[in-house]
Amino acid sequence: METTALRAAHVDAPLLPVRIQRRDLRPGDVDIRVTFCGVCHSDLHAIHTPAEAGGSFPLVPGHEFVGEVVAVGDSVTSFSVGDPVAVGNIVDSCGACRMCLAGQENFCEEFPTLTYGGRDRGDGTTTDGAYSGRYVVQEHFVYHRPAALDPAAVAPLMCAGVTVWEPLRVAGVGPGTRLGVVGLGGLGHLAVRLGRALGADVTVFTTTAAKADDAKALGASRVVVSTDPAAMEASSGSVDVIIDTVSVDHELEPYLSTLDLDGTLFLLGYLGPVTVQTLALLVGRKRLASGGSGGHRFTQELLDFCGEHDVVADVEVVSAADVAIALERLARNDVRYRFVLDMRDIDDLTSPEK
Amino acid sequence: METTALRAAHVDAPLLPVRIQRRDLRPGDVDIRVTFCGVCHSDLHAIHTPAEAGGSFPLVPGHEFVGEVVAVGDSVTSFSVGDPVAVGNIVDSCGACRMCLAGQENFCEEFPTLTYGGRDRGDGTTTDGAYSGRYVVQEHFVYHRPAALDPAAVAPLMCAGVTVWEPLRVAGVGPGTRLGVVGLGGLGHLAVRLGRALGADVTVFTTTAAKADDAKALGASRVVVSTDPAAMEASSGSVDVIIDTVSVDHELEPYLSTLDLDGTLFLLGYLGPVTVQTLALLVGRKRLASGGSGGHRFTQELLDFCGEHDVVADVEVVSAADVAIALERLARNDVRYRFVLDMRDIDDLTSPEK
Repeated sequence: METTALRAAHVDAPLLPVRIQRRDLRPGDVDIRVTFCGVCHSDLHAIHTPAEAGGSFPLVPGHEFVGEVVAVGDSVTSFSVGDPVAVGNIVDSCGACRMCLAGQENFCEEFPTLTYGGRDRGDGTTTDGAYSGRYVVQEHFVYHRPAALDPAAVAPLMCAGVTVWEPLRVAGVGPGTRLGVVGLGGLGHLAVRLGRALGADVTVFTTTAAKADDAKALGASRVVVSTDPAAMEASSGSVDVIIDTVSVDHELEPYLSTLDLDGTLFLLGYLGPVTVQTLALLVGRKRLASGGSGGHRFTQELLDFCGEHDVVADVEVVSAADVAIALERLARNDVRYRFVLDMRDIDDLTSPEK
Repeated sequence: METTALRAAHVDAPLLPVRIQRRDLRPGDVDIRVTFCGVCHSDLHAIHTPAEAGGSFPLVPGHEFVGEVVAVGDSVTSFSVGDPVAVGNIVDSCGACRMCLAGQENFCEEFPTLTYGGRDRGDGTTTDGAYSGRYVVQEHFVYHRPAALDPAAVAPLMCAGVTVWEPLRVAGVGPGTRLGVVGLGGLGHLAVRLGRALGADVTVFTTTAAKADDAKALGASRVVVSTDPAAMEASSGSVDVIIDTVSVDHELEPYLSTLDLDGTLFLLGYLGPVTVQTLALLVGRKRLASGGSGGHRFTQELLDFCGEHDVVADVEVVSAADVAIALERLARNDVRYRFVLDMRDIDDLTSPEK
């Protein structure tokens, strides 16, 4: 089937509306009309990554989206036409390794098939993302979306949300936990809201004192300006778990010092090499961990939890036609806290009258 | 009171027997006749650390020892003359910080007073270690030692033993746990034995294929030669917890790859800065941790456990007069697995007839 998508022809190119082909439904496939798709920092990164650094073009970004089921393959049992659904950044995996069997397809040993720029395990084609009117994906990677929640505000849960949810859950965050969140952006604001909804007492560490009111509105009980050495010193040993969402290289020791005995710092935003003083881990027996995106085990759980606790992302919805504006503002971090593209009229962008 | 001790007059100097003064008993003190004292790698390090790098001379090393109570202060309630006891590398702490209140005096926020080279919190003098005939220490840092165990083989439990015990316990190692131990020396051989006694299945990673039989005799069910890339590859995801006792800088990624989902690598032997690829932590959501020595909470527990399960160190006992031989062989790692100095006749070394 044909649909409209926003596509970059080559590295650094603008995203232009073009007609693309979605595969015919396989027996286990779900055909989804995309209504809203979040704009993730990694989309921006992908657009600006040349082929020699691993970039893949032409490129249709988009890997946190919601929509409704338009059609299902013959063997699909969990979804029906009209169901409200959501999809994240993984659309396939080997299904047989330890990680897949544990519902952690995000760590698939054969590497999961990503929602865009991935290699389709069936026909070897490159996957096109959800900056698009339709998406065809196998049932296992489609999730039921609570219909009562604002669909646009659900979209970012599928990547930013589950990326912070998995560490919160495996760390056992709940009533009595003192949670630290470093950085108040797409991931950070969801970590605050989800942590609070889980019952934790939340401290936000930010370089921007002006974000204090926002942090408290999201559910933080305390804000520490991380560039203030006295404030950081006063926070020594004050939290049990840290969700660090800063996406550039930064010193970890100041944050490790805010952890109490046996605390864990999850580094989620930065993907490069990190250097840490062993003594900063030794004293208080602290742990440095990471994680990213989500598997089946935790993704449906997150959506159900958000439905029960009325948790969604703070989003700014822009029309698909204005994607360039959203990307340009995102590059300047000018967003609270996530752009979401409205895909409902994307086909108009390629209609003959245009 | 006077006693004999082995003391280095200056950096790199030989340890020579001299008479030193122990303090008069304070009300909470226990006076111990030292019978055996383990020789720790850090003793060697201390002897060769110049003042400008933090060394302190004259130096009497020794911080894992056993003995019997000779006298007790007026307020001592837990010990009586003749009790078999053991002491580790901490003899005092602030007693008031979060860590001390949690029984983790090894992480005292005011820094614990070390058994040697520390600053006595009462009179400001520098502490002399247990390469000595007597030691006076406050009750809180004295532990009951199971009388049925070989005392010489208990001494190394007080530093090497508790250093691996704390991570094993906080990681919940027990039946069903797949434990990896990197390096088979003073710490490593105790990690194998204690892990096995806790019910874990133990894999030893070593650069020395010849250690395989020893590792199995200690309780390992599998030995992986870490310099064999194929063997390491075959071990991918095979353990839940790693106790890494290697005391020099080394790549962590090969060991992180042997961890399964949510596994933790405790780096116990190396104290410098480490660089790690975030992706090696991200995939499988792994943790890098550290730790070192022991607090009240876990030290008595370890001794009780060792009494119940008949676990001790493998030691080579040498007379106090032969300390130079022990240190020289230790510098070449020529020991299985811990030298212990017999202090029972140390006073003879300074007797007038000599």
